[in-house]
Amino acid sequence: MTTEMRKFTRVDFTYHHSIPTRWNDNDMLGHLNNVVYYRLFETIVVKFLAEEIKLDWKSAIENVQAVESLCRFHKALSYPDLIDAALRVAKIGNSSVVFELALFGPEDVMASATGHVVEVFVDTASGKSTSMGDHRREIFEKFTLPS
Amino acid sequence: MTTEMRKFTRVDFTYHHSIPTRWNDNDMLGHLNNVVYYRLFETIVVKFLAEEIKLDWKSAIENVQAVESLCRFHKALSYPDLIDAALRVAKIGNSSVVFELALFGPEDVMASATGHVVEVFVDTASGKSTSMGDHRREIFEKFTLPS
Amino acid sequence: MTTEMRKFTRVDFTYHHSIPTRWNDNDMLGHLNNVVYYRLFETIVVKFLAEEIKLDWKSAIENVQAVESLCRFHKALSYPDLIDAALRVAKIGNSSVVFELALFGPEDVMASATGHVVEVFVDTASGKSTSMGDHRREIFEKFTLPS
Amino acid sequence: MTTEMRKFTRVDFTYHHSIPTRWNDNDMLGHLNNVVYYRLFETIVVKFLAEEIKLDWKSAIENVQAVESLCRFHKALSYPDLIDAALRVAKIGNSSVVFELALFGPEDVMASATGHVVEVFVDTASGKSTSMGDHRREIFEKFTLPS
Repeated sequence: MTTEMRKFTRVDFTYHHSIPTRWNDNDMLGHLNNVVYYRLFETIVVKFLAEEIKLDWKSAIENVQAVESLCRFHKALSYPDLIDAALRVAKIGNSSVVFELALFGPEDVMASATGHVVEVFVDTASGKSTSMGDHRREIFEKFTLPS
Repeated sequence: MTTEMRKFTRVDFTYHHSIPTRWNDNDMLGHLNNVVYYRLFETIVVKFLAEEIKLDWKSAIENVQAVESLCRFHKALSYPDLIDAALRVAKIGNSSVVFELALFGPEDVMASATGHVVEVFVDTASGKSTSMGDHRREIFEKFTLPS
Repeated sequence: MTTEMRKFTRVDFTYHHSIPTRWNDNDMLGHLNNVVYYRLFETIVVKFLAEEIKLDWKSAIENVQAVESLCRFHKALSYPDLIDAALRVAKIGNSSVVFELALFGPEDVMASATGHVVEVFVDTASGKSTSMGDHRREIFEKFTLPS
Repeated sequence: MTTEMRKFTRVDFTYHHSIPTRWNDNDMLGHLNNVVYYRLFETIVVKFLAEEIKLDWKSAIENVQAVESLCRFHKALSYPDLIDAALRVAKIGNSSVVFELALFGPEDVMASATGHVVEVFVDTASGKSTSMGDHRREIFEKFTLPS
C-alpha cells in the first residue's frame, strides 16, 4: 500500500512529531540503524494514540497491538538529524487502523523512509479484537487525507 | 509475499539460528517489543551473510543495504524464550536478494512472527546497486526451498 | 570497591552466564557500545535473581531495584564475541546485595570489563526497602568467594 | 566522588541538554530502564564533546574512550518525561577528563540520578592515551564549577 509513497512530501501527512536522534541510533555503518526506523515509527504512533485517541497504556480493559509493520528505506538518515516523523490515517476498520508513516531528515523534500503500521484494538480479557467505537473512529477520520 | 507464511512450520525454512532473548527485550506490556522482532531479523540476516556469503562488513568496496523490511506479529513472544529464527531465500535478483523470515518460540509449531527483508548489494564508491556475482547467487540458491 | 578487579580471572567469580552479542551491540566505533556493557550486567543479574533467588518480577508485593551501578572498561569487546559474564556476591545487607561483575571475551584471561550493581529489595506498597529474609541471605552467601 | 551529589540542584551544573524520552525507554516495571540512564549520559557527553570540544568522531588520528562510568538511581524517571541532563567538568588530567552528570525530571528540584563518566583521549594508531592539549583544557575549565 505504500508503493508510491516516496514521492509524497510533508504536506501529504496530517500529523507530525519531531524526534531528536541519539548518537547510538547510528550503527557501525555510520547511519541510522534500520531497526531504529521502527523505533521512530513507534514513537510517533504511541504519541498519536496517547494525545489524540487518549489511549491509556495501563488500561486493564483493552489495549492496542501492532499486527504488521513495514518500512522502505529510500535514503540514509543519520545522527544528529532531527527527524520529522509524519503520520496519516490510511484505513479505518471496525477494530483496526492503518497508519501510513514517513521520516524526513532536515533537508528532505521527499521522505527518506516510508511505511505503515497496522494496529488492532484488543479486549484484554479475551485477547480478541474489539470494536474501536464511533468516537475513536471520528478522531481517526480527522487525520485521513482529504480525497 | 508473506501472506500465507504463518501456516508454515520450521521445516519450511532452510537456515536457523537460535537467539536468546534479553530481559529488556520485553516492553511495558510484558512481551517482546515489536521493534525487537526486527532486531532478531537483523541478527539472523547478518549471521547468514557473514557465515554463508562471507560478507565483510568493513569492506571499503561494497556493502549490503536493506531497502525494505516487513513483520507480521501472529502471537506474542516473551523473555526468557529462546527464539528459533528461521530464514529462506525467496527471490534472487541481479543485485538484490529477498529473505523470508520467521520467529518461533520454544513451543511453537507455527511461526509467531513472519516477515521479509530485501537486501541490495551496493558499490560503496558510487552508492549504486551492484551485481552480486555468480558465486553468491549459487550460495543463495542453496537456501531456497525446493519447488 | 572494584579497584583491583581487573587482575581477577574467571575463577574469581562464582556464577557465570554465556551471552551472545548482537551485531548492533557494536557502535560506530566498531566495538561494543559502553552502554551495552550495562545491558550485559543486567542480563546476568536478572538471570541470577530469577534462577537462584526465584525472584518473581511480576510480584505485586516486592521488587528489586538497582540503586547504583558502575563499570570499568579495560579492553574493548566486540560482536561476534560470545561473552562470559561473571558474578559474585560481594556484600549482603539486610535489604541490599552487592554483585561484583566481570565480562570476559573468548580469549580473555583477565576481565575486559569489571563493575558492580547494588540491588535493594523494596516493598511495593510502601516503596521502602524491606528485609530480604534469611532464606535469600543463605542463597546469596553461597555465591560469595571463600575468604 | 559523587557521594553527596543528590542534594545538588540544576544550578550546580554548567551544561544542560534536554532529552525527550521514548516510550520503550521504560521497561517492564513501568519506569526508565536503568541502562537507559547511561544512554542519556552518553547523549549529553557526546553532544558536549561535539559542540564544545569540536570532537570529530570520525577522526583517524585520535578518539575519546570511556574508561569508567557510574550511576546512582535516586528516584524513578519515566516516559514521557522530558529529561534535563546536566553536566559539569569535575577533574581535568593530562589526557583524561571526568564529567559529573545528573538527570532531572520535569518537576525535580534535586537530581533523580547522578553519576560520572571518565573519558580519555587516545591516539588511534598506538591505542595509548594522548595529551588533550591546552586548547581543550581551557574549554573544559570553563565548564567546571567556580570554587
